[in-house]
Amino acid sequence: RAFRSDRASRDGRSPACAASQLEPIGPFLAQAPRTLVIDHHATRDPIGTREGDLRYFDESAGATALIVFEWLRACGAEIDRELATALYVGIATDSGWFRFSNTDVRMMQAATDLVGLGVDPNAVYNAIYQQDSHAKLRLIARMLENLEVLGDGKLAVMQLRPEDFRATGADDSMTADLINEATRLAGTEATLMITQESDDIIRVNFRSKSSLDVSQLARRFGGGGHARAAGARLHGKWDYVVPRVIDETLAAL
Amino acid sequence: RAFRSDRASRDGRSPACAASQLEPIGPFLAQAPRTLVIDHHATRDPIGTREGDLRYFDESAGATALIVFEWLRACGAEIDRELATALYVGIATDSGWFRFSNTDVRMMQAATDLVGLGVDPNAVYNAIYQQDSHAKLRLIARMLENLEVLGDGKLAVMQLRPEDFRATGADDSMTADLINEATRLAGTEATLMITQESDDIIRVNFRSKSSLDVSQLARRFGGGGHARAAGARLHGKWDYVVPRVIDETLAAL
Repeated sequence: RAFRSDRASRDGRSPACAASQLEPIGPFLAQAPRTLVIDHHATRDPIGTREGDLRYFDESAGATALIVFEWLRACGAEIDRELATALYVGIATDSGWFRFSNTDVRMMQAATDLVGLGVDPNAVYNAIYQQDSHAKLRLIARMLENLEVLGDGKLAVMQLRPEDFRATGADDSMTADLINEATRLAGTEATLMITQESDDIIRVNFRSKSSLDVSQLARRFGGGGHARAAGARLHGKWDYVVPRVIDETLAAL
Repeated sequence: RAFRSDRASRDGRSPACAASQLEPIGPFLAQAPRTLVIDHHATRDPIGTREGDLRYFDESAGATALIVFEWLRACGAEIDRELATALYVGIATDSGWFRFSNTDVRMMQAATDLVGLGVDPNAVYNAIYQQDSHAKLRLIARMLENLEVLGDGKLAVMQLRPEDFRATGADDSMTADLINEATRLAGTEATLMITQESDDIIRVNFRSKSSLDVSQLARRFGGGGHARAAGARLHGKWDYVVPRVIDETLAAL
């Protein structure tokens, strides 16, 4: 889990703990003589259940990097600046830079201790969040321009179609995290980002602020995720799929 | 200083410590029999220098709220959840939510302690940063759409003209913090946000990431500020003022 792609986690495409998230190192792990699984998700994957394997789960930890850090400290391991920075990245990205609801005193204390070990928060922020291309900013502009607010202001819907990528020079790799652009809207509870990946594949990212469990919504469409961040990939034509997703979300609000 | 408008601080319009920042309570303060000044800026205003006044400055503190918090703790004062939240807001906004270069272990420890006293970081973030109007998002869309990257990618320039406000339904109160939208661009060192306030008043906000001292640039145009965040308000026609500001910034890079 410590090797999980942060991008995958942040954009909500693969929010469940699953061996599939461990690509491309999955096959390598399967061949390993013993596996140690450290996780803060409730998982059901059979990974780490063979003879000799070890599993260490702590669902109360806001990030797996937090578990690893506390473990290293308990072992008396030496934590240099490089290792501290890696752990800080894990904690900071899993908490949306200390703003998601998993940000608690335990996570903040670990972040504080890591800064004490030499982490430069400003440099880390710059390295993670200030690396966007001009094309991505054009894509954001187009997405925000077309943003719709529905359901008496409770639902924000953003749509990205192939022509948006063509017109801006952006590509699908730049859509990670984009759904957060709309969560800044006052009064909204839920946000949908609907991306047309091909003629008949449509990706939907769901976010909610406090009450709506979007993982249930995502499951209805064959996806999954967390209560506040989930996703699904639907097969079907845009004009059929999109109204259905919007209608079901509005009905759930 | 604890009463300073966070908006004024964040948008870089009035970054120097000055009595003028204390509007509308300035006149009230001037009448007070004694004044206590607590500040983390290097200040030259004569505020707090009368007989009986007290001044407590600590330029090593990332936020004035940090000084107040440490002081209250040293006094053994009881800090309830409401007070802790107010102090957290001061620390979080002055550090750009723990991402600016003033974020150090001392500030992180204070934030951690405040979370321990009952602050809900997710709720505070939502209350401060997730209250934007749809009009503001349309304004951001238009601004990003017109963003220019100059100087071999080192300078990002965003412009807001009266027609942008008219077309989006936005107003000038929504421009606070907007300059940060472009700091996410990879490779840029400096960002300018140029806002036409009227026929012959043009506001320029400057940001830099690491090396350029934008306070010097702002001073050339009658403004001021910090090395990384500064601002100026220029009198003159758009077509004369804007190229001059851009040229001088490019020359400084």
